[in-house]
Amino acid sequence: MTNKPKRYSSESEFLADYDVTKFDRPSVAVNVLVFSVSNNVAENWRRTDKKSFSVLLVRRDDYPDIDKWSIPGGFIGMQETALDAAHRLLRSKAGVVGGIYLEQLYTFDDIDRDPRTRVFSIAHMALINKANLHYSGSHDVQWFDIELADGKLLLTSDDLILTDKDLAFDHAKIIKTGIERLRNKIEYTDIVFDMMPREFTLGELQQVYEIILGRKLIPAAFRRTIANKVVATEKMRTGSGHRPSVLFKKK
Amino acid sequence: MTNKPKRYSSESEFLADYDVTKFDRPSVAVNVLVFSVSNNVAENWRRTDKKSFSVLLVRRDDYPDIDKWSIPGGFIGMQETALDAAHRLLRSKAGVVGGIYLEQLYTFDDIDRDPRTRVFSIAHMALINKANLHYSGSHDVQWFDIELADGKLLLTSDDLILTDKDLAFDHAKIIKTGIERLRNKIEYTDIVFDMMPREFTLGELQQVYEIILGRKLIPAAFRRTIANKVVATEKMRTGSGHRPSVLFKKK
Repeated sequence: MTNKPKRYSSESEFLADYDVTKFDRPSVAVNVLVFSVSNNVAENWRRTDKKSFSVLLVRRDDYPDIDKWSIPGGFIGMQETALDAAHRLLRSKAGVVGGIYLEQLYTFDDIDRDPRTRVFSIAHMALINKANLHYSGSHDVQWFDIELADGKLLLTSDDLILTDKDLAFDHAKIIKTGIERLRNKIEYTDIVFDMMPREFTLGELQQVYEIILGRKLIPAAFRRTIANKVVATEKMRTGSGHRPSVLFKKK
Repeated sequence: MTNKPKRYSSESEFLADYDVTKFDRPSVAVNVLVFSVSNNVAENWRRTDKKSFSVLLVRRDDYPDIDKWSIPGGFIGMQETALDAAHRLLRSKAGVVGGIYLEQLYTFDDIDRDPRTRVFSIAHMALINKANLHYSGSHDVQWFDIELADGKLLLTSDDLILTDKDLAFDHAKIIKTGIERLRNKIEYTDIVFDMMPREFTLGELQQVYEIILGRKLIPAAFRRTIANKVVATEKMRTGSGHRPSVLFKKK
């Protein structure tokens, strides 16, 4: 009596006898978190310097969780990588055309996260300059400004306000994991420059850090921290009611 | 003519009609990279102060890739999380008993990484103090010292030398990804203390950084970098032919 599997005389003999249908198998999906920072429009409809941090969501048009808002995604084909599936689904679900840099965030694996079957989701993340994103606008594809307080999300678009329960599946958890990763990454990598214009003032850069970190920074300390990441150009930002400021670029 | 899926009047009606067997499905596995740093034994069998960075591998006892060395792992059950599977397989494949802290590293998804079927592997990683690890020693479970030069691995145990081609599946790639992640993490997190004894000299801590980073550090610069992570105790390390050194602990 032994639990040892039946032995074969060669790997090819083993493989010829391998029947994958004998085993329970899950499904594997991707979801793609696209984050951006952009200028707000104030309540009086004037574009302001105040920035907001936002995420691209799509409204589900089928069961399960029909009509809920979700992170663009879907099942991975048997003959494509997770990254290829992420690009394909970002195009088909959110209309995002053209290459954006995606990185793997985390694989979500709660046993009951999808009512259809066991579904793993390999979440990916992108941080972009919204001005560089080409996508087909639709009422079912929208940017939502993000606020995260006491572990709860508050997502607002021009005409909608969502909280955790308005999101499909475990997507509130995926968004929070992405925010947490981003907060770590902007402190130790150059990822923040993916969503900055080519030239920017240090004040603008600091605003982007503050909006992602969700807290105010002290200008002198901030400038020391990023001193070795940026270099001054010979240009100045003038006008718009501010003192002239030197424009910087990524070193 | 439309590609729109058939619509249902409720989610429960949709779910009752959902037949997962209509879809191609992959398999999902975990692998667990266990890294440690330990004192070397010199060629003349004297234990030295020189440390080495090592990984725990198991020899495969079945097809595919029978007899090759591999990162402990296996398939995830339909009713367990990836983390639970990682702990279960670390015990059953490598005999590791008791809790060690695991974190998700990356999900490997190359289309042909396993000859049986499409297999995703959610790799996990642990960094441990080998003295705290309880495992049943076996000739098929061994620690290998790691050298990584020009993108190639050289893994050595007491009686074996392995290179990339001696490892099962894409496990050489997984080990390299783990080393890269670890090199990033020890610079910006406290992960290094997971494999340090409670009290240590700054020289010992520097040795651990150097062995993981694979390069020498300048003592003065190193001490500035870790100054806010450690605190001096009132104890000294004496004897063993060295000048007495203050023992530190994690702050």
